[in-house]
Amino acid sequence: MNEQQKITIVQNIMNANDGLAEQNRQNLLSARLFSINIMASPGAGKTTLIEKTLHAFTPSHRVLVVDGDIATTYDADRAAAAGAKAIQINTGGDCHLDAMMVSRALSQTTLSEYDLLIVENVGNLVCPANFELGTYKNVLVASVPEGDDKPHKYPGMYRGVDVVVLNKIDLLPYVDFDSEFFSKGLQVLNPNVEIIPLSCRTNEGLEKWFGWLNKEMDIFKKETS
Amino acid sequence: MNEQQKITIVQNIMNANDGLAEQNRQNLLSARLFSINIMASPGAGKTTLIEKTLHAFTPSHRVLVVDGDIATTYDADRAAAAGAKAIQINTGGDCHLDAMMVSRALSQTTLSEYDLLIVENVGNLVCPANFELGTYKNVLVASVPEGDDKPHKYPGMYRGVDVVVLNKIDLLPYVDFDSEFFSKGLQVLNPNVEIIPLSCRTNEGLEKWFGWLNKEMDIFKKETS
Repeated sequence: MNEQQKITIVQNIMNANDGLAEQNRQNLLSARLFSINIMASPGAGKTTLIEKTLHAFTPSHRVLVVDGDIATTYDADRAAAAGAKAIQINTGGDCHLDAMMVSRALSQTTLSEYDLLIVENVGNLVCPANFELGTYKNVLVASVPEGDDKPHKYPGMYRGVDVVVLNKIDLLPYVDFDSEFFSKGLQVLNPNVEIIPLSCRTNEGLEKWFGWLNKEMDIFKKETS
Repeated sequence: MNEQQKITIVQNIMNANDGLAEQNRQNLLSARLFSINIMASPGAGKTTLIEKTLHAFTPSHRVLVVDGDIATTYDADRAAAAGAKAIQINTGGDCHLDAMMVSRALSQTTLSEYDLLIVENVGNLVCPANFELGTYKNVLVASVPEGDDKPHKYPGMYRGVDVVVLNKIDLLPYVDFDSEFFSKGLQVLNPNVEIIPLSCRTNEGLEKWFGWLNKEMDIFKKETS
């Protein structure tokens, strides 16, 4: 297989994914279901952030969580225990969710029965950035112990997201993390993106995250009414 | 493209990689150059572990570092500053190193001039596990703030490595990390693998890592003499 054939195959896969993502987007809009795709490195705190969000947003909101993992149902179990309807996708080794996997998961339920869809992607700072799922907003969870150089080193991920949650700020006294260097790296790639520093351990900053989510849900409701 | 065509393409890519990895392995054996492939999540501490290793092993050993990154030359710059000959591979978006990239990097220098080759893979707990590079040993750097569930959730990576460095143990008092749960998850996948807990920040445990490296280099020297 030569380089041109490889490029053609990759383009075919990406085009097929984009088409399915657009279908998901239309289905979610029709159901007036606001949706976010949460991406992060392994262990940045996606699942814990989702748990905290569920405790704040249920039962007043009806929340659907779609959990992508290579193995285990740990994350879906935690989401279900925290009050959501949870659907597990085991990617069987794949390093990211794609629009087809999400489409299949969403077909298992009635979208109009929910107010908020949270898709938890596979823990990976590279591949998920290349696969649109059709969600309304893309969220990146960064974490303090990962280091302040990550926007510089993973530009594809940091460039494409709508908001950056910086988790584990309770660890700032114990690690070398230059918040200004982190912010500067991010600003170059994604000039107007909001950074929400918080700690899922101490709950500091969580209100700001809930505020962002409420604000975006309100905007979405107005746009789809 | 149907599922069978996709599987065939993936198999062709993997077979091509395995062939090149075997060539790298033979080249390194001929040059009697002991080599490790260091893999980890983004921010687990690969680069800092390499810096500490270089401070301990140079100039008494001649060390070659091959650094894989999606963007920037930060890691190669740090390795060079710490006393190694450093070659940067920018993968241009690819989420892992492959045997071809390493082959190209190694062809830029004379392998027999070095005692130790350290390959620093792209920060990713999924894809690098599927691409043999031809190195003699595979090293995984896990870190305490990533969480104790990672062997359970990323079995492909934890199954295939020869040693697990558990970095950032200085953060144990500040996070929820059950060492027994971590070890149990690892033992199931990789029963005899050694775990080396350490902190690159406080230097605790580093001597054990240096000991492992010295021991393996000695075994390699005897086997290739």
